[in-house]
Amino acid sequence: MKAAILSIGDELALGQTLDTNARWLAQQLTDHGVPCVQFRLVPDDHAMQAQALVELARSADLVLVTGGLGPTADDLTREALAHAMGGVPMEEDPEAVASLHRWFRDRGRSMPQGNLRQARRPRDATCVPNDMGTAPGLQARIGSAQVWCMPGPPREMQPMFDRFVRPGLPRLALATGMVHAFGQGESFLADLLGDRMQRDRNPLVGTTASGSVVTARVRGREEASTPQAMEAELVEIARIWKPYAFGSGSVTLAGALGTCLRERGQTLALAESCTGGLAGSLVTAEAGSSVWFRGGVMCYANQAKADLCGVQAGTLAAHGAVSEPVANELAQGVRKRLGADWSASITGIAGPSGGSHAKPVGTVFIGVSGPGFAGVRRFQYPGERAAIRDRAARTALALVRLAVLDPADFHVPFIWESKEHA
Amino acid sequence: MKAAILSIGDELALGQTLDTNARWLAQQLTDHGVPCVQFRLVPDDHAMQAQALVELARSADLVLVTGGLGPTADDLTREALAHAMGGVPMEEDPEAVASLHRWFRDRGRSMPQGNLRQARRPRDATCVPNDMGTAPGLQARIGSAQVWCMPGPPREMQPMFDRFVRPGLPRLALATGMVHAFGQGESFLADLLGDRMQRDRNPLVGTTASGSVVTARVRGREEASTPQAMEAELVEIARIWKPYAFGSGSVTLAGALGTCLRERGQTLALAESCTGGLAGSLVTAEAGSSVWFRGGVMCYANQAKADLCGVQAGTLAAHGAVSEPVANELAQGVRKRLGADWSASITGIAGPSGGSHAKPVGTVFIGVSGPGFAGVRRFQYPGERAAIRDRAARTALALVRLAVLDPADFHVPFIWESKEHA
Repeated sequence: MKAAILSIGDELALGQTLDTNARWLAQQLTDHGVPCVQFRLVPDDHAMQAQALVELARSADLVLVTGGLGPTADDLTREALAHAMGGVPMEEDPEAVASLHRWFRDRGRSMPQGNLRQARRPRDATCVPNDMGTAPGLQARIGSAQVWCMPGPPREMQPMFDRFVRPGLPRLALATGMVHAFGQGESFLADLLGDRMQRDRNPLVGTTASGSVVTARVRGREEASTPQAMEAELVEIARIWKPYAFGSGSVTLAGALGTCLRERGQTLALAESCTGGLAGSLVTAEAGSSVWFRGGVMCYANQAKADLCGVQAGTLAAHGAVSEPVANELAQGVRKRLGADWSASITGIAGPSGGSHAKPVGTVFIGVSGPGFAGVRRFQYPGERAAIRDRAARTALALVRLAVLDPADFHVPFIWESKEHA
Repeated sequence: MKAAILSIGDELALGQTLDTNARWLAQQLTDHGVPCVQFRLVPDDHAMQAQALVELARSADLVLVTGGLGPTADDLTREALAHAMGGVPMEEDPEAVASLHRWFRDRGRSMPQGNLRQARRPRDATCVPNDMGTAPGLQARIGSAQVWCMPGPPREMQPMFDRFVRPGLPRLALATGMVHAFGQGESFLADLLGDRMQRDRNPLVGTTASGSVVTARVRGREEASTPQAMEAELVEIARIWKPYAFGSGSVTLAGALGTCLRERGQTLALAESCTGGLAGSLVTAEAGSSVWFRGGVMCYANQAKADLCGVQAGTLAAHGAVSEPVANELAQGVRKRLGADWSASITGIAGPSGGSHAKPVGTVFIGVSGPGFAGVRRFQYPGERAAIRDRAARTALALVRLAVLDPADFHVPFIWESKEHA
C-alpha cells in the first residue's frame, strides 16, 4: 500500500498558516508502515484540486485529503472530488442533512443556510460523520485509489482519521528510535556510521542536525522492529558515537547531564557571561532540575564577575574578561558561592561587535570545576550571535557531563575547537 | 510568473520534522505577488525527486527546492536535478571545491571526504554560494522553468533566498509592517482594532499570536503602501493597543526595554528563580545589551536567594520562596548587589510538580524595583512548564518597561492576572 497526502487551502498556499496536518498524517502512516510517496498542497482552486486528486490517485492506493470542506464559497473539495471521479453529479445526502440539523439544534442555534452545502456529496461517494464539527468527511474511489477527504481543523480531522481511516490500515511491525550526539558535525558523525547508513539496510539509519545536536534516526521494519533489535541498534550507534552521544528518544543535553548528576547525588552551578542565562534556561527547562541545579550568576558586567563569582580584579585587568584565567576563576568561584559539586563558566564574544584579531567574534572560553577537577577549553564558534550563544551554552553542559562521566574525555576534540592555546 | 515549491527529506515524509520552509517561501512569494500553484514534498528518493522536478517545471516558471544537498548518501537532490534536466552528466565545480576547502580551513578543520559530494553539480547548472554552511545551492533550467535548489536548514536557506532568488522576483507596490503587543490575548486585542480588520480594507490588518506576543500584521497595496501611509497605520494601531504595544518590525520585548533604558542611561539586573536564566537569555540575545544589562542571579536554590540576593532567612521561612515578600526582597537585593537602576525578580511554580491549593502550578510573583519604585504582581499562567516559564520571563521584561515609562501603567490588567491578592 502506498499513500499520498493532499492539503488544501489558500491560507496554506499564501504561507499564512503552517500545514501541520500533512505532518501528522505522515506520522500515522509511518506508524502503520505505509510509505507516503507524495505530498501536495494546493490553494482553494477547483481545477488545481481536481487535477491533484486525479494525479495522486494514479500514484497511490490511498489518498488522504484535508481542507476545503467548510460552508463557504471558497470550500471546493466536494465539487473537485466529483470532477476527479469522472464528473459524477452532486447529490444531497439525507443523513448528512439530518446530522447538520441535529448539530445546530443540540447547540440551541439555527442553521445558517450556507451550511447545507456541507451535506452535498458526489454520487457514489459516502459522507463520513464528524463528531467535532459541522463538516462531514467524504470517502470515495478514484480509479483504484481509495480517497478520504477530511476537514482542515486538526481537532476535527484527527478523530475522524482515528475512527474511520486507521482501522483500514495494515498493522505492521515497525519501530523508530533516535540517538543524539553533540560536539561534532553531521558529516563527521555520519562517516563514523559508515555502512549502517546504506539506504537498503533494515533497520534504516539516517542523520539529521538540529541546531548543533546531531541525531541518528533509526527505523526498523519486521524482524528489525523488535524491542531487542531496536535497542541493540541504538546501543551500537551510541557506542560508535562515544563520547559524543548523550542520549536517545526525547532526552536533551541538559536532561542527560541531570541524569548523571542525580545518579551521583551531585549538583551544578553556572556562571554565564556572554550567554547571560541561556545555559541556565536550558537546565531549568527540565522538570525536576531543582534536585541537581543550585543556580548561577549571569555575570554580564565585570562587577558581577568580581562581586558575585569572586574573580580577582587583577585577573580581569591582566587577561581581560574573555580569557582562560577568568573562565577558571568564574567556575571555581560560582561553584564555591553556590555550594555545588560541579560548575561551568562561559565567557566569550558573541558579537556582532567586540571582536579583535586575537579574540575574534565567536571566541568563547568554557571552564568546568568539580571534585578534584578543573579545566578550561577555548572554542571558536562560527555564525551569528544567536548560534554562537546557543552552541556555547550547550557545549558547557556537554563538557560538565563529560567531566563527570570520565575526566579523560573532557578534552575530546569538538568541531569548534580553537587552534589557539586555551 | 507562477511558482512551485518542492520540499525534500525522509524526516519530512516520515512526519518526524515539520516542513517550515515551504511556508516561509510561500510568504516571501506572496509578498512579491507571485502565486504559488503547487507545493510538493517527497522523501529522499532519486526517482520521486526527479519526477517531481519535471512535473513542477511544467506547471510553473519558478521552482524553489529545499533539502537533499547535504554531504551524505541520502542527499540526492544534485543527481535528481541532473536527471530532470534530461540526464546531463555530473561535474565537479572547481569554485565550489575551493569554497568548501576554504570553509573548513577557516574553521581550522580538515574536510571530511564526503563533503566533496557537495561540490558536484549537473553540467549546465550553477553553484550558488552558501554563506552559512557547506552546502552550495544550485541554479538550473528545466525546460522553460528556472529552478533553485537550496539547503534544508532554514538558517542557510533563508539568506540564500534573500541574496540570490529575491532580486529576480517582481517588485510590487506592496509594504508590510507589524506592531507587537504583550499582556493581553489575541481576541481582546483584535476586538480593539474593530473595523480595521475587515478583509477588504487596504491596508489589510490581521493578527497572529506567537507564544504570548500578539502581532498586528499590516499589508498595504498600491496607495496604502507608501512609507507615510504605513507609518500612520502602525502608529494608530500602537495607540489603540497602548500600553500593551511595545514595538514594531523586528523589535523584541527585550529590545524595547533596552531602548527605554539606554535612552535614560539606566541599567537592569535580574533575579530569576523558576525561569532560571530565561529572562536573562532573552535580554542578552540582544546585541549591545551589555550597555544596559548588568547581570543577574539564577536563584534556584534558597541558598542562592539568601547569599546572592540578600533575601532574609526569616522572609523565606515565613512566606515560602514563592511569595510577594520574597519577590520584593529579590528585586531589591539583586538591584543593589549589581548596582543597577532597575531590576526584576521572578519566583513561581513552573510545574509539573510543586503546586498546592493556595499556590497551584503556574503561580508566579514578579517584582520590579527602581528609582523610587517598588512593585510586585501575582500571575496565574496556564499551560505547561515551558509556556509558564516563557510567559513569566516575558512578563518581567514587560513590567520593567511599563514601570520605566510610566509607573502608573505597572498595574495595567494582564490576561494572566491572578484573582488572589499578590
